Amino acid sequence: MLSKNELKYIQSLCHKKQRQETGLFLAEGPKLVEELLHSDYRIKKILATGQWTEEHGTNHIVEQVTEAELEKISALQTPNQVLAIVEQKALATEPVIEGRLSLVLDGIQDPGNMGTIIRIADWFGIEQIIASEDTVELYNPKVIQSTMGSFMRIKLWYKRLTHFLSALQVPVYGALLTGNNLYEQPLLKEGVLVIGNESKGIRPELLPFISHPVTIPRIGGAESLNAAVATGILLSHLIK
Amino acid sequence: MLSKNELKYIQSLCHKKQRQETGLFLAEGPKLVEELLHSDYRIKKILATGQWTEEHGTNHIVEQVTEAELEKISALQTPNQVLAIVEQKALATEPVIEGRLSLVLDGIQDPGNMGTIIRIADWFGIEQIIASEDTVELYNPKVIQSTMGSFMRIKLWYKRLTHFLSALQVPVYGALLTGNNLYEQPLLKEGVLVIGNESKGIRPELLPFISHPVTIPRIGGAESLNAAVATGILLSHLIK
Repeated sequence: MLSKNELKYIQSLCHKKQRQETGLFLAEGPKLVEELLHSDYRIKKILATGQWTEEHGTNHIVEQVTEAELEKISALQTPNQVLAIVEQKALATEPVIEGRLSLVLDGIQDPGNMGTIIRIADWFGIEQIIASEDTVELYNPKVIQSTMGSFMRIKLWYKRLTHFLSALQVPVYGALLTGNNLYEQPLLKEGVLVIGNESKGIRPELLPFISHPVTIPRIGGAESLNAAVATGILLSHLIK
Repeated sequence: MLSKNELKYIQSLCHKKQRQETGLFLAEGPKLVEELLHSDYRIKKILATGQWTEEHGTNHIVEQVTEAELEKISALQTPNQVLAIVEQKALATEPVIEGRLSLVLDGIQDPGNMGTIIRIADWFGIEQIIASEDTVELYNPKVIQSTMGSFMRIKLWYKRLTHFLSALQVPVYGALLTGNNLYEQPLLKEGVLVIGNESKGIRPELLPFISHPVTIPRIGGAESLNAAVATGILLSHLIK
């Protein structure tokens, strides 16, 4: 049985400010929690319904809650058996840009897009993402859920992009509506690929740093593609 | 000023049953409504705040409402100036499969994915989509919004897929995790591409009809790709 204070505390982790102050985040569902248990993430607490504890037992970390309690603390529309409170990981290292491909995100706002992009990066073996400071936070519950676990295999830094890009010595690809034909690009072994905001694209201050603007040729009538979809298409052609 | 009955009536169009009974659907936001006004869709009513009516005026179709009223009838998280009640279009024709590429959707459940897939089809000039009967409804407000207007350029039929696929004489490509390497496929001039449900993939009953199983080669650790992202990647390689 959760006390009122515990309930309030867990609910507060849905807010960025509270996550930053505590250095914690929430992850939900049997699959994600199972994967976290086998990772080097430190789990502070697991709150699970009987369905989950029957299989996994309870201990000083795992506490059984009712369906109704889980519903109160869950950020999901359909709560799913188990919620974990997990410690955020601070990155001790800086990104290594040479000899590999990294992703740069400029102002991605939608948590679902963000999580999907992290999942795409993971699918294509891209381990480093550098995001502008106004990109949605990695530990937003909707981002974490939509990565489907991929956040555990990706390193993400938030940086001032003008500063970051100006220091690079590698090709800087950028997804633009007026770039070179993606299908005519050689495979990319080293560099970064910049993906812009969902509605505004890459912000004007960054355009001077784009050495290789690329475009996915359009055949039909849609004005643009979703940012995550464009990321997937670009990567599948640049590093296949 | 909206009466209680009008309010109730408009809100009821968020439900599939009511949409099917009335043959109407909702579309929101200045961009989408503007595009609808220039299309051959028949608009029954437009409800807009002063910001919109100042530019467009009011008449027997356009009625001014307050921000608070718009919020009550809007299906969006952030209501956006204008909401239109629009007549659904019945398709008088059957899909023409020969000589072109069509998309087949098997049980897509998430409205955001569905809308994004329609937008991708439109980007790649695919004009026909055949969806299983349990695929989310085109006129779901979230589908309509996430197509970003592309629903106006796409024809969508709901069909029993076993029946539909069994009658085809063209190549049937299917997105599977165990298919042939996408990057080694020739360009596809004629056929259909089957995309499966977000978590279950293509249902077993349909597998015998897949003549060309294809897979997007995985380099990293993610278990799968989002259905819409996979659709975008597949199309960009099969019909570029």
